[in-house]
Amino acid sequence: MLRVAVDVMGADKGVAPIVLGALEALKKREFEAILVGDESQISPLISNLPQNLKSRLSVRHCSDYIRMEDGATEALKRKDSSIYVATEIVKNGEADALVSPGHSGATMSLATMRIGRIKGISRPAICTLMPTTTAKPSMILDAGANTDCKSEYLVEFAIMGNEYATSVMGYENVRVGLLANGEEESKGNELTKEAFKLLKEYPFFIGNVESGDIFNGSTDVIVCDGFSGNLVLKAAEGVASAVSKILKDDIKSSPIKILGGILLKGSFANLKKKMDYAEYGGAPLLGVNKVVIISHGKSNERAIECAVYQALRALESKVCERIEKAFAK
Amino acid sequence: MLRVAVDVMGADKGVAPIVLGALEALKKREFEAILVGDESQISPLISNLPQNLKSRLSVRHCSDYIRMEDGATEALKRKDSSIYVATEIVKNGEADALVSPGHSGATMSLATMRIGRIKGISRPAICTLMPTTTAKPSMILDAGANTDCKSEYLVEFAIMGNEYATSVMGYENVRVGLLANGEEESKGNELTKEAFKLLKEYPFFIGNVESGDIFNGSTDVIVCDGFSGNLVLKAAEGVASAVSKILKDDIKSSPIKILGGILLKGSFANLKKKMDYAEYGGAPLLGVNKVVIISHGKSNERAIECAVYQALRALESKVCERIEKAFAK
Repeated sequence: MLRVAVDVMGADKGVAPIVLGALEALKKREFEAILVGDESQISPLISNLPQNLKSRLSVRHCSDYIRMEDGATEALKRKDSSIYVATEIVKNGEADALVSPGHSGATMSLATMRIGRIKGISRPAICTLMPTTTAKPSMILDAGANTDCKSEYLVEFAIMGNEYATSVMGYENVRVGLLANGEEESKGNELTKEAFKLLKEYPFFIGNVESGDIFNGSTDVIVCDGFSGNLVLKAAEGVASAVSKILKDDIKSSPIKILGGILLKGSFANLKKKMDYAEYGGAPLLGVNKVVIISHGKSNERAIECAVYQALRALESKVCERIEKAFAK
Repeated sequence: MLRVAVDVMGADKGVAPIVLGALEALKKREFEAILVGDESQISPLISNLPQNLKSRLSVRHCSDYIRMEDGATEALKRKDSSIYVATEIVKNGEADALVSPGHSGATMSLATMRIGRIKGISRPAICTLMPTTTAKPSMILDAGANTDCKSEYLVEFAIMGNEYATSVMGYENVRVGLLANGEEESKGNELTKEAFKLLKEYPFFIGNVESGDIFNGSTDVIVCDGFSGNLVLKAAEGVASAVSKILKDDIKSSPIKILGGILLKGSFANLKKKMDYAEYGGAPLLGVNKVVIISHGKSNERAIECAVYQALRALESKVCERIEKAFAK
């Protein structure tokens, strides 16, 4: 049975939503969960479980955890922190995959340094799923692990993204685009122009794409440096929340609009669900030897539940092995 | 009387909306307009004007114009193209400002090479106004003129943005932020970390800002390289149009939702107006010796009308002279 280690410490809303999200997944899918963190906080949340769940659940106690304000490098020294212990469990084979909504810099450092990179990978990348106007989400990588990149890194991101989209997402004929300031080959900055030349060799490469293409379903995998990826992601969040605020304020301005708002409640809920990061689980850290899912610090139960499913899908589709094979060529 | 040269050629929807937009502005404000382009296309649009408008309107005929698919460097050679002629008119003082919805690369090249940079400016920058949840738009520069930047350029953009926000927009205590992947000083890529050190000296600098801050009204001027600026701008457009499509499709799915949609028509119209680039005019090219407004290729009448107002405001507030003074220090 597949075993998923969940680091329950260090998320914005405390231990409860993380533990409850893992339990929810445990109810619906056959796997073993190892909760890593402060036992005194975890125990009350798992006291009255049915035997079927209890038998697939264990707790690994740690007395320490990395706070959001701590430096990522501290994680390598604090060996009793929940993320250190959770990483070790995955490293030594007691668990198959890691899910962590804690300090993402710490998770990346430990995954890279302790679990290790797949041979041929210069830098692991965060791969974030984005909503589109179609039924298929797009993927953007690197979404923030590497602020400054070399062109070769972008090629590695493209190969990893292609493997993930094919195996975990089940996409056929994956279209990988290079994020630039225009579609023509002549567009781009020094980094992307260099990367374009290298990417032309790959059959999955469809050329430069603009950031609007992330949301319209025309591209499956969008490759960029982690600084750009982060800008685009946060711009998307910012616009969605600005649009929602402007609309809400305007609707409040008249009784007829309020009635309209009530009738459209379902539409707004559907839109919210489509745009909700929680539904997409966490972001896999691609390029390390094991399945590592980095969840949002503000994760709710549903986000953790979905992140666990994502870890299971990644394990079942053997994405790490597939990436390893792709780079062995 | 202030004189504005309008290049009427090369926009996506042809000559008509550009000419009509200029006429609309002419009706509402006292200034002289010089329409530059193919006389045979312009004449039918201005045949039956009242004397009050006719006396403030002239046409400068050119037989050529730069197409969207032409290279920007061609503009320097094609001396009878509308943008070349319009730039020369501004250069030699026959007009005070230029508005062009044509090939933006050509406009930038000609403005930089023929009109010339303000002393102390390394690279002129495009300054684009962005909608926020507050009544005040924010400004992002560079929005696309310079894909690769040095840290000194970003400092120049900050100074120019501060002057524009103060004089043209009338903002007090302008807050200038540096676009990065996190607010802490330690965040950023090599370029922005270097720029951060230089910007710390300036009282208007509020530190790193994230791309969500462009839309929430917390920052007046957002400084970045032109590649990043373009990514963020197009992400914003992409998300707004994706949200609108998802919502529209969902509303169509039931009669009750359709009714809700009808009742909320006014709210959607207000939102659209708030997000509509046309209302914000064009994007000033800051750092050249004259007022140059680059309009969207898809500009409609309203966008050109607003771009003319923007040119007039820039002239009245003497923004070029103010930038010159700021760099003379």
